[in-house]
Amino acid sequence: MKIAILGTGVVGKTLAGKLASLGHDVALGTRDPDATLTRTAPGPFGDLPVAALVKDHPTIQVLTFADAAAHGELAILATGGQVTLAAAAATGSALDGKILMDLSNPLDFSKGFPPTLSVCNDDSLGEQVQRALPAAKVVKTLNTVNVSVMIAPEALPGGAEAHTLFVCGDDPDAKARVTGLLREWFGWRDVLDLGDITTARGTEMYLPLWLRMMGAVGKPAFNIKVVR
Amino acid sequence: MKIAILGTGVVGKTLAGKLASLGHDVALGTRDPDATLTRTAPGPFGDLPVAALVKDHPTIQVLTFADAAAHGELAILATGGQVTLAAAAATGSALDGKILMDLSNPLDFSKGFPPTLSVCNDDSLGEQVQRALPAAKVVKTLNTVNVSVMIAPEALPGGAEAHTLFVCGDDPDAKARVTGLLREWFGWRDVLDLGDITTARGTEMYLPLWLRMMGAVGKPAFNIKVVR
Repeated sequence: MKIAILGTGVVGKTLAGKLASLGHDVALGTRDPDATLTRTAPGPFGDLPVAALVKDHPTIQVLTFADAAAHGELAILATGGQVTLAAAAATGSALDGKILMDLSNPLDFSKGFPPTLSVCNDDSLGEQVQRALPAAKVVKTLNTVNVSVMIAPEALPGGAEAHTLFVCGDDPDAKARVTGLLREWFGWRDVLDLGDITTARGTEMYLPLWLRMMGAVGKPAFNIKVVR
Repeated sequence: MKIAILGTGVVGKTLAGKLASLGHDVALGTRDPDATLTRTAPGPFGDLPVAALVKDHPTIQVLTFADAAAHGELAILATGGQVTLAAAAATGSALDGKILMDLSNPLDFSKGFPPTLSVCNDDSLGEQVQRALPAAKVVKTLNTVNVSVMIAPEALPGGAEAHTLFVCGDDPDAKARVTGLLREWFGWRDVLDLGDITTARGTEMYLPLWLRMMGAVGKPAFNIKVVR
């Protein structure tokens, strides 16, 4: 299918490569496509530049946020949390009526580690995105795991059945569709629907615990199982 | 051992009954012991009044916060989050040098459901308690599970090995001691040390997710396993 991925950080690039490998027609959205393609330095996680990704996956197009959004039947918002709303706004009306999977977290590292959240408690980035794009069907998901877990849940001990992912959003059909795609694309098996988009507060406010658990277990490739 | 339990809500009463059953010398701390013992109405969760608990467990003393704290070799702070700091302050210097297990969460239901947190993001109730009682050894724990799970972790599917509890605090020896007591008293098996008391932010900010998971799974008796 035609998929827009907004954001060219490690999450956007990894998902683009994975989905292109699965045969999907992927457009990567970025603020300035020429600048993005010209960059040669690796990212902060040692991730290859976009030009290298495109060399490996020649079907991936690199477009503006608006053009990528227009290309996609569905879009994945995978920017850093501090530019999420700017990226969403840049899509104009191109996502009207479409599913927008929001993976971003409002982490603010400007005061060092541990980061704080730039929105929390009585609002969330997921809600802000939904308010910014009221005609899009926002589904908050995948923001509670590291990118290596996003695309390969079976790699954790016990396999994909042994841990849980969440979906949050106002549109039940959109959440059901996303749940199916998460299974089809990446192999997710235990996907829990938390409710409307206000439940994104919970999954975003989980990030401070996630970061400390990462410190305690010594690696980013872990997740939680809801034992019920 | 001599244990102080501060707070006479469902958590304090349940822990008092359980620990008294195990043979411990329990003092329940409350603002006004006479008023607490005179109350005959059940609590908001159908929990029996303190007088009924004491009838079942005659060794349990009901004292002021300060007298209960003086009684305990160790104390458990089990008040509602909105009175936690008042209860801590009422103990004066009675907890100096002692371990204080802090189970409280800063949930504010004054604006309805879902509650917000009265402190979060760049501070936590655990840190506030530690600052209020600098000579106590505060260990934040048990605040991520319902009281039924606190005292019987083996009752969840897969048993006590199948899900995780956290400890947070500045004193490594106090955390090790609490970890041992959680195992001895209640049977906890997978206890993860998250780090210093600032990591309490993570476990408290997890509550909004916990509340939404409770809605999704339809019961309060669940927990998470850290799959790593």
